[in-house]
Amino acid sequence: MNEFDFIRRYLVQQNQDADVLKSIGDDAAIIRASVDMDWHISKDLLLSGRHFFEDVHPADLAHKVLAVNLSDMAAMGAKPRWCLLGVALPELNQTWLDAFCGALFGVAKRFDVQIIGGDTTRGNGVFSVTILGETPKGKALHRNGAKEGDDIWVSGQVGDAAVGLRLLGVAKQLPEYADFAESLRLLPEEVVQQCLAAQLRPEPRVVLGQSLLNVAHAALDVSDGLIQDLQHILTASQVGAEIHLEQIPSNRVFKKVFSPAQWQQCVLAGGEDYELLFTAAKEKRMQIELLARENNIMLTRIGQVGGEGLRILDAEGRALEIKQGGFDHFA
Amino acid sequence: MNEFDFIRRYLVQQNQDADVLKSIGDDAAIIRASVDMDWHISKDLLLSGRHFFEDVHPADLAHKVLAVNLSDMAAMGAKPRWCLLGVALPELNQTWLDAFCGALFGVAKRFDVQIIGGDTTRGNGVFSVTILGETPKGKALHRNGAKEGDDIWVSGQVGDAAVGLRLLGVAKQLPEYADFAESLRLLPEEVVQQCLAAQLRPEPRVVLGQSLLNVAHAALDVSDGLIQDLQHILTASQVGAEIHLEQIPSNRVFKKVFSPAQWQQCVLAGGEDYELLFTAAKEKRMQIELLARENNIMLTRIGQVGGEGLRILDAEGRALEIKQGGFDHFA
Repeated sequence: MNEFDFIRRYLVQQNQDADVLKSIGDDAAIIRASVDMDWHISKDLLLSGRHFFEDVHPADLAHKVLAVNLSDMAAMGAKPRWCLLGVALPELNQTWLDAFCGALFGVAKRFDVQIIGGDTTRGNGVFSVTILGETPKGKALHRNGAKEGDDIWVSGQVGDAAVGLRLLGVAKQLPEYADFAESLRLLPEEVVQQCLAAQLRPEPRVVLGQSLLNVAHAALDVSDGLIQDLQHILTASQVGAEIHLEQIPSNRVFKKVFSPAQWQQCVLAGGEDYELLFTAAKEKRMQIELLARENNIMLTRIGQVGGEGLRILDAEGRALEIKQGGFDHFA
Repeated sequence: MNEFDFIRRYLVQQNQDADVLKSIGDDAAIIRASVDMDWHISKDLLLSGRHFFEDVHPADLAHKVLAVNLSDMAAMGAKPRWCLLGVALPELNQTWLDAFCGALFGVAKRFDVQIIGGDTTRGNGVFSVTILGETPKGKALHRNGAKEGDDIWVSGQVGDAAVGLRLLGVAKQLPEYADFAESLRLLPEEVVQQCLAAQLRPEPRVVLGQSLLNVAHAALDVSDGLIQDLQHILTASQVGAEIHLEQIPSNRVFKKVFSPAQWQQCVLAGGEDYELLFTAAKEKRMQIELLARENNIMLTRIGQVGGEGLRILDAEGRALEIKQGGFDHFA
């Protein structure tokens, strides 16, 4: 199978989107935009050995490659529409491709996203997705919209993906995760599975993101770690904030099995949660709680915007010193 | 320097484009589309050791990374507008980045393209550009528009980039280029420089592409090799063609120093020319020759659309058997 067979066989799909004038098969895809929409575009680069383990199951990989990009759309309240996929693989193995493309198109279909182009080449496991989405004109959520007095909310729970990463790392006997080995053995099997799923198959909050248009003042997705991502909002919005450690939604078991430093590392600084972190006026509390029920998703208030800098308070109201920043892609 | 310093320092530019509502610094860029335009989007993945040598000069690399994507826009007659850059580098070295980003923004400025987003991570030299461009509604050039009786044209000359690659490969004593060593020594220095420039700093035919709207029936850029790319047009258009070997514009010196097989390998099957290959009705000849003069670019008729399959005829009218297909990205 060569490059062109691969594209024909796996990537070319029936185009059923009237806004797509040209899909895979020319030098570029062509799309026609709605007049009343703003367009969002972002891209991600995922590398074997850095963003995923070399032996990752192709279906998990496909899920994650697309999910992290869907999450960028969710973070701004955008409806994802189209994506382009760049792939570098060491070989075109049919079994592997069947699993990868099956999962990829499964996720794309579930989120109503069409794959309209890309690039394929030989290489050591590189995946790059470019995603396009839309919001009604002028309605997009930004990082810089947080206002004094806003509540700070987070969806789902944080830390699971970081624990999942450590579970994989310990199973592979990687030295950087060795100090977690003992604590991780204490996790109930159910929690283990939940953390592995959070790490391998994160669920982008696409519907929630769109529900937050006209509700939230600022939003982003937690990809670099809760504290670091909150800092992104505070810096962009030029505000401070106070958050309450006890209110941060994370698995209760973590506090029992991990040391405080380990807990902080996973819950406060662990990346890849792909939950939405957003701020909204106090007047929106009822509406947000209703949204949570409608979307069948947990939404938790963890603090307030205001004051100078970021203060993280424990149950006794003492300010915590944070050592672990979050995920620096060049660290 | 960490990821965020890098982005702040090198990538965030003053946004002077009213259609860009949000540039680098949020989860996605936001752009607003003209109602009377179609949008083109494509992406490329370039890997160290495969698409460029590890020791490539950062300015050359930046040029090429952007140029090959600009060429995809040129191929469809689109005006490039915006791009996103994904970068994986082993380290953030300031000298290297100064040279890379200086050249990148230089090329972007020259082609009036704004860099509106991207992704950076640690890795072994991976570059992915996503480019967006526009054509007036319904006017884009496609691969599938070639018609019986069309002339087949190519811009500039082909083969230089392939010879440039072999010059680099021989200098590095790579075994796969060893059989070229002797012939390459016979090239005049001026031709050597020209071939290296074609390989390292290809000039995308952006203005020419836009001039071909309403003129050409079908077009693409020669990236995989002249014959293979012409086959793409023929297959997509469901037509055959005849081309004349003697009419293919390539450096005259090549015929003197290379064996016929080497000549074919570079001129007919050598990729990365980034010239435009297009078909147009005979009635457009005068107009196309005028275009060539206006754009100060050579445009050469190399054959005609018609008949069955692709026939390549030598000066005596004998059909050539083509062994070398072109560039398969998984070969």
